[in-house]
Amino acid sequence: MAISLNVTIRLKLVNKPGMLAQVLAVIAAEGGNLGSIDVVSVESGYVIRELMVGFSERKNMARLVGALEEIPGVEVEQVADRVFTKHLGGKMEIKARSEILDREDLSTVYTPGVARASQAIADDPELVYQLTIKGNSVAIVTDGTAVLGLGDIGPEAALPVMEGKALLFKKFGGIDAVPLCLNVHSIKEIVDTVVACAPTYGGINLEDIAAPKCFSIEEELVRRLDIPVFHDDQHGTAIVVTAGLINALRVVGKSIDQVKIVINGAGAAGVAVTKMLLVTGARDIIICDRNGAISRDNLSAVDSKKWLAEHTNKGCVHGSLPEVIGGADVFIGVSGPGLLHREDILRMAEKPIIFALANPVPEVDPNEIQDIAGVIATGRSDFPNQINNVLAFPGVFRGALDCHARVINDAMCLAAARVLADLVPAEQLSPEYIIPSVFHEGVCPAVSHAVQKAAKETGVSRRYRFEEKQQDKILVFNAD
Amino acid sequence: MAISLNVTIRLKLVNKPGMLAQVLAVIAAEGGNLGSIDVVSVESGYVIRELMVGFSERKNMARLVGALEEIPGVEVEQVADRVFTKHLGGKMEIKARSEILDREDLSTVYTPGVARASQAIADDPELVYQLTIKGNSVAIVTDGTAVLGLGDIGPEAALPVMEGKALLFKKFGGIDAVPLCLNVHSIKEIVDTVVACAPTYGGINLEDIAAPKCFSIEEELVRRLDIPVFHDDQHGTAIVVTAGLINALRVVGKSIDQVKIVINGAGAAGVAVTKMLLVTGARDIIICDRNGAISRDNLSAVDSKKWLAEHTNKGCVHGSLPEVIGGADVFIGVSGPGLLHREDILRMAEKPIIFALANPVPEVDPNEIQDIAGVIATGRSDFPNQINNVLAFPGVFRGALDCHARVINDAMCLAAARVLADLVPAEQLSPEYIIPSVFHEGVCPAVSHAVQKAAKETGVSRRYRFEEKQQDKILVFNAD
Repeated sequence: MAISLNVTIRLKLVNKPGMLAQVLAVIAAEGGNLGSIDVVSVESGYVIRELMVGFSERKNMARLVGALEEIPGVEVEQVADRVFTKHLGGKMEIKARSEILDREDLSTVYTPGVARASQAIADDPELVYQLTIKGNSVAIVTDGTAVLGLGDIGPEAALPVMEGKALLFKKFGGIDAVPLCLNVHSIKEIVDTVVACAPTYGGINLEDIAAPKCFSIEEELVRRLDIPVFHDDQHGTAIVVTAGLINALRVVGKSIDQVKIVINGAGAAGVAVTKMLLVTGARDIIICDRNGAISRDNLSAVDSKKWLAEHTNKGCVHGSLPEVIGGADVFIGVSGPGLLHREDILRMAEKPIIFALANPVPEVDPNEIQDIAGVIATGRSDFPNQINNVLAFPGVFRGALDCHARVINDAMCLAAARVLADLVPAEQLSPEYIIPSVFHEGVCPAVSHAVQKAAKETGVSRRYRFEEKQQDKILVFNAD
Repeated sequence: MAISLNVTIRLKLVNKPGMLAQVLAVIAAEGGNLGSIDVVSVESGYVIRELMVGFSERKNMARLVGALEEIPGVEVEQVADRVFTKHLGGKMEIKARSEILDREDLSTVYTPGVARASQAIADDPELVYQLTIKGNSVAIVTDGTAVLGLGDIGPEAALPVMEGKALLFKKFGGIDAVPLCLNVHSIKEIVDTVVACAPTYGGINLEDIAAPKCFSIEEELVRRLDIPVFHDDQHGTAIVVTAGLINALRVVGKSIDQVKIVINGAGAAGVAVTKMLLVTGARDIIICDRNGAISRDNLSAVDSKKWLAEHTNKGCVHGSLPEVIGGADVFIGVSGPGLLHREDILRMAEKPIIFALANPVPEVDPNEIQDIAGVIATGRSDFPNQINNVLAFPGVFRGALDCHARVINDAMCLAAARVLADLVPAEQLSPEYIIPSVFHEGVCPAVSHAVQKAAKETGVSRRYRFEEKQQDKILVFNAD
């Protein structure tokens, strides 16, 4: 279950009959899937060719290059990885919303005209939402300490992920998000930096910041800023897991307040999922970290784990994951590869729900448990029921920005989870279809609408106050 | 010489003959220049019309609205300022460099594929320049304390200017620049914030930060960062002023080391212009601030003014601008409106060069001195010889980014100034043509090339070291 690999191999071949056939035979023998074959150029006595080849195993790729180089008359000039070529020069760019064609345009978007827009905002600070990018702009903030499964690789190495995230913000939410990769790592420094930069942005998306500091950073930013702050690894994951679980329980015919839930992983995602499931009505949750079940008779020094101990595991159960999983209705893994096994699942309650969300390699291979699980979900796109945050954050921010929400609160997140679940029509619900596709076009509008409604109901929307002022202030020239 | 104004006026008119004629007569009487006339809709008994009207004076605009409202049967529904409508929702957006159409694209630009790009950078940090936006990305940093002529209006109100600047970076330099408006104001806080955010950017453009703190901020950032830092209000202005002065001196047939130069204004621009003119060969410079000539026998507590006192005004002249301007060959105003008068210029040397750069209202009205000046330049686009920073910063950054310069040093700035001057062919030089047009397509490539050459000569280019590694590292799959 490794990541597949697509490469373009550029070969310099002696120009004689049978050379290409030898090459193709070697590719087939080494397990490569041949795609297109192009001639790049013909030189005296040589042909330069590019071959697209796919692999399911990285080691086959390395072996193929070695095997090709051993064919007399073949020289491997370059092996280009599709992932790298797609990243060359970065994945995003800035674009003017209207073209600058002449001096008239220049003097409108820049001096002297721009001074009027600036003066208007100086006179009425709220106009920054109308006359600038702020109202549609989100900073994707990371310090690179918990990037994907790679861990603490630093802010520069995190940048490709943040750029990718920005593309998702734009494609699925129409939001202009920019990476903000920080090379400071203490809670105070990260918070101070983000607060200092906040005037440019309408919202802050925290990303891939290690637990437990991510909790304090978020809390402190929410306290100090008047724009929404959202830690996607926590709340985005919690929303989509909750949506998936609501539907999975419908499929197996159980009720959330009756089921025993075991969550493996007490990091950002584990904590947030637990909190949201409690709000949704779950009453029996046990969380395991690498030391086993977290319980109130053995409190951790870490605040977030202390909170979990105090709010879950009422029976004060002890033991490792295999020991506490017995009889559970639901397993949610937000941990690492291969930590759960078929024999563990056999000891769970009937029709067990398995959310094995570790990426790219899940806690348990879905192929090995399909006959014994009630519902299986993973974080991967090559299995049914992908629990993917892209179902949540674009719509959540779209909604929060559009109603000028001051914060993104629990009610808004829960509304997002419920509407996501309801996007799968009751008659289509099945063990293999509990969550909408990321390409379902209705997702972002539905989530945004639900989020705005919840924001208004909980009094954190600023939209209506804002709209009242719009007529007088903006379009109307303010004679002086 | 006020800023002209273009508005769209929406009127609700009683639908009877002669109404529009009355409206047009009032517009003409109030000095409005009529553009297009559209019918928006016809309702029972009413016609809604939109009229484009231009004004040279804002007060005429206000008077017109009053006059229109006094016509029986006319209601002014809205007056939309073209500047504001161009700013609605912000002026820039984020765009993916290649489209995300399917799951294959998703898994390349985001998880799981992106993990390979991140891992590659973690293994070789320099690859961040190849695999991310960093190499083409500039932060436009301000704290909003010295925005255009508006002064300290704060970071939010500065945002339209920074967005406008970003559009210029893209249009003229192909650079992806983003605003970073800070709500911290001490030297330490600004420096710490920019250093914390630096991993995302290939360069830092400081903008509209008040003097004298801008000098320390720049100095400290240059010391702490390994990417170029450029304060456009200083160095951008200095480059274009120097370029213009080189050509103006050619026009009047004088030599820079022989002329007496009086500079009015000792802020960011004044200091930088002085430094660059000294490097270029000027030997007789007097700088005035609002207290008159800065001299070494009366040292200021402000470091930048102390430096000026120690490096200029060798004769230790005292007095106000009108007192010291006598006999000067060159006046450079980077100060405020109307501070220089015809009678002052009459006392200057023959063929005096007047750079009256205060914006939007120059130190002296060019129309009043055309008969007595040798060469006149302003910051405005509606006179010949516009001294506009957009001639410099896109090419300077293009060059610095392309050669991975560690800094932007004096040699690079001077090279930019000289090449800018040389872009006006000797045979075309005239009192009304000393500097290329901002729309001259050769400007950015020429400046970039000169800057890269100077960077290489002064040993701050990192390009060649970088290119050597490229072949092995990036495109070639690194078998593991």
